[in-house]
Amino acid sequence: MAKLQKLADLVGGELQGDPDLDIVQVAPIDRAQQGDITFVANTKYLAKLKNCQASAVILAPGIDPPDKMNLIVCANPYLAFAKILTFLQVSERPVNGVMSGAWVAESADIDKSATIYPGCVVGERVKLGAGTILYPGVVIYDDVTIGRDCLLHAKAVVREGCRLHDRVILQPAAVIGADGFGFAPDGDSYYKIPQVGIVILEDDVEIGSGSCVDRAALGETRICRGTKLDNLVQIGHNVNIGEDCILVAQTGISGSTIIGNHCTFGGQAATAGHLKVGDHVMIGSRGAVTRDVAANQTLSGLPLMPHKQWLRATMTLPKLPEMRKEMKQIKNRLEELETLLKEN
Amino acid sequence: MAKLQKLADLVGGELQGDPDLDIVQVAPIDRAQQGDITFVANTKYLAKLKNCQASAVILAPGIDPPDKMNLIVCANPYLAFAKILTFLQVSERPVNGVMSGAWVAESADIDKSATIYPGCVVGERVKLGAGTILYPGVVIYDDVTIGRDCLLHAKAVVREGCRLHDRVILQPAAVIGADGFGFAPDGDSYYKIPQVGIVILEDDVEIGSGSCVDRAALGETRICRGTKLDNLVQIGHNVNIGEDCILVAQTGISGSTIIGNHCTFGGQAATAGHLKVGDHVMIGSRGAVTRDVAANQTLSGLPLMPHKQWLRATMTLPKLPEMRKEMKQIKNRLEELETLLKEN
Amino acid sequence: MAKLQKLADLVGGELQGDPDLDIVQVAPIDRAQQGDITFVANTKYLAKLKNCQASAVILAPGIDPPDKMNLIVCANPYLAFAKILTFLQVSERPVNGVMSGAWVAESADIDKSATIYPGCVVGERVKLGAGTILYPGVVIYDDVTIGRDCLLHAKAVVREGCRLHDRVILQPAAVIGADGFGFAPDGDSYYKIPQVGIVILEDDVEIGSGSCVDRAALGETRICRGTKLDNLVQIGHNVNIGEDCILVAQTGISGSTIIGNHCTFGGQAATAGHLKVGDHVMIGSRGAVTRDVAANQTLSGLPLMPHKQWLRATMTLPKLPEMRKEMKQIKNRLEELETLLKEN
Repeated sequence: MAKLQKLADLVGGELQGDPDLDIVQVAPIDRAQQGDITFVANTKYLAKLKNCQASAVILAPGIDPPDKMNLIVCANPYLAFAKILTFLQVSERPVNGVMSGAWVAESADIDKSATIYPGCVVGERVKLGAGTILYPGVVIYDDVTIGRDCLLHAKAVVREGCRLHDRVILQPAAVIGADGFGFAPDGDSYYKIPQVGIVILEDDVEIGSGSCVDRAALGETRICRGTKLDNLVQIGHNVNIGEDCILVAQTGISGSTIIGNHCTFGGQAATAGHLKVGDHVMIGSRGAVTRDVAANQTLSGLPLMPHKQWLRATMTLPKLPEMRKEMKQIKNRLEELETLLKEN
Repeated sequence: MAKLQKLADLVGGELQGDPDLDIVQVAPIDRAQQGDITFVANTKYLAKLKNCQASAVILAPGIDPPDKMNLIVCANPYLAFAKILTFLQVSERPVNGVMSGAWVAESADIDKSATIYPGCVVGERVKLGAGTILYPGVVIYDDVTIGRDCLLHAKAVVREGCRLHDRVILQPAAVIGADGFGFAPDGDSYYKIPQVGIVILEDDVEIGSGSCVDRAALGETRICRGTKLDNLVQIGHNVNIGEDCILVAQTGISGSTIIGNHCTFGGQAATAGHLKVGDHVMIGSRGAVTRDVAANQTLSGLPLMPHKQWLRATMTLPKLPEMRKEMKQIKNRLEELETLLKEN
Repeated sequence: MAKLQKLADLVGGELQGDPDLDIVQVAPIDRAQQGDITFVANTKYLAKLKNCQASAVILAPGIDPPDKMNLIVCANPYLAFAKILTFLQVSERPVNGVMSGAWVAESADIDKSATIYPGCVVGERVKLGAGTILYPGVVIYDDVTIGRDCLLHAKAVVREGCRLHDRVILQPAAVIGADGFGFAPDGDSYYKIPQVGIVILEDDVEIGSGSCVDRAALGETRICRGTKLDNLVQIGHNVNIGEDCILVAQTGISGSTIIGNHCTFGGQAATAGHLKVGDHVMIGSRGAVTRDVAANQTLSGLPLMPHKQWLRATMTLPKLPEMRKEMKQIKNRLEELETLLKEN
């Protein structure tokens, strides 16, 4: 619970209404009750405020609520909502140290404000920074370095030698540093190419449940500061993903591809290997990158094309059988004309 | 082992033949030996009974086997096969209580007929119902409620506050309640929106290996009674999936989408977010739902279209280059005609 | 570190230069330093040798380096690179026996040269061969047999009764033997068909992180010798995959499909169920096998077509809207001509 004034200050917003109002929690506009604060990030939902029971609303400047209400006015209501939600409803992280039932190698260097739950296994020479938490069943192989305030959820695995910087979040069952998929043909069979590189996850990277970031064959696979991966995303060996990228669920990035900063990949998108994608590229869901892509584009489809062109092309797809039929008719009519003219 | 009469009674079928026959196990028609019972669910396999060594067969009414055989005649032979298989070959579940090597918080409320294997970690205030089994390495975060006769396989994870009703099955490494993928743009970077909602899995839900059901941002993600998810399926935050749905492997449902009852999604299908899909909708493999879908339809493709239309459209695809070439020829011929006519 | 002569002997190559040269490690051509050995597998990178600091190079016969260098000349430089990398940089596996913090059933038969890390759980009657390693948190259900020199990474799960032959590698969180996805319609609901078969992984099979190989309903799911699965691959129940196949990430093979030897599936490819794919078939990324496929073909797309045809067809896709527009123009011109001729 917090006073409305405190929340306005927290988000740098302007308070209009009762500064001493007690706010208990954040709620969506259609379920908010007394004591709740809600938000309008999109003016099309503004009308819903009419019947809303919320005690206060976060709004962008220049927008008038239908009724007189307590307001926090700020430029980015969605961001303010996220910050207030964090402040009101995210509990402080525990500091429990190495708990009974965790196996930590003697040579590991664990900050005393870190927490390691039961069922975790931490290998030789591992370093764990201040405030970092390993939830139950996390496995850290030898020689891994993990920074401050990281959150590794249950069953996450980090393999040998990988490095996580600060405030990295691994959702449950994320796998960092498994072997890249590399084999040399040897007659009819395949010979495994040892994958002796590592993975580096920079500050504020988040990796979704079940997502896999493979270690490099030689050198490193790197995901740069602030990039977020959704669930079940596959990152091949020696990939480099820039800063502040968003990769939606079930996307796959093939080996050695280099992606710029501020790129977005929709769900189930993919790239081939050894490609370069420039900064500020958006790839639509299911989009397939099979060639280098210059910066500042929004592309979709297989083959990749400008998103608007793709929308038109896909709208034509259901009409293909009809087009084919029409083409036959046209040919027949044309032939008739040709015959007619020949006769004349 | 069981007498044939007992199996006929079990499935409510009519016995034709020796009621005292001993049946050892169920076997497919092309591998069945003496002592086995097999089944014919599809009459196209009926001819295979000719050389079949099975001691008995499950058949639908009105179908005559090629030779005289011991029969169980019932309306749904496939269902009867499943029930007899369960009866003959599924062993009773163990009741071992909390085993040595499991960590269970003191505040947890564990029914005495539940089983918790070594390597499991069960958090504070967790409730576990009668007959429920946690296989090795399952992690249950704080404040989770799990009903009766649930089966959580190795490495399954259920995060804080989620609720599993009765007879829920989690295959190995399923992840329930990981953070939804929500970020508010904050300048060039992203600010994490805390995901403070939960996941509810109703009675008889089954979740496949490695599948992820994300917790809601606010409120709940819900999978209703009887719905089955295959492996590596992704369910975004605040999704609601109705009763008795089937989601085949590698399908992805984006955040806040609402799916009706009795829907089926083929493998690698997907939906965009914030959509509504009516009851009894079938989406073909790789189908992509990008708009609301009314009830009682069978749709495929990207864009989504009636399945039969999609079949025709995709059959036209390989002919596209040829169509394009033909169109050029048509234009040329047309031009010739026009020139000819102009000259006249 | 090794002498160059020793490395040449290791790969059966011909040494040209100083046999006593000390080689420390393998490095890619653009990062190699003194003491490193590098390789040229593709002649288009030959020019890079000009400025390369490597002490030695692995080359195919008949290729001349731009400068005089120490060489190992052999028919397959990429394979030689893999073998030398393995020799120089892959450490010997530990032999630690059953470590403290591992739970192993008394009835299990563990070779004394096997290693079981903390957090592993090994069930009743499990057999574990010589030199096999279970990394932390691996769970082996009852009655599993695992051969020699297998490597099961953290959080891998092998369910009851499955069999792994020799030198099998499971990357972290791979799941072997989860229930296949089988349900019999029972009125509006589904009745679970018990999956009482097993999975067999033959010699030298490798399964990627998070990949799932489901147990058979009855009988077995089998992956034959030397086949490699990348991450997040789904293998349905009763599938049989031949020898020396390559399945790239996020591919899905539906139940009961039989795939021949030496097949390759690109990323996010898929097959429907109950199909047969012959030997030496290559399916491109996103290719969808919806019918039986004869041996010795390279196919892509949905519907599947010869890869070259698919390339042309997809290149036509972006032009569809334009084609449709042209077709309308053609029809108009045709109508004008027809009218004109009728008038005459």
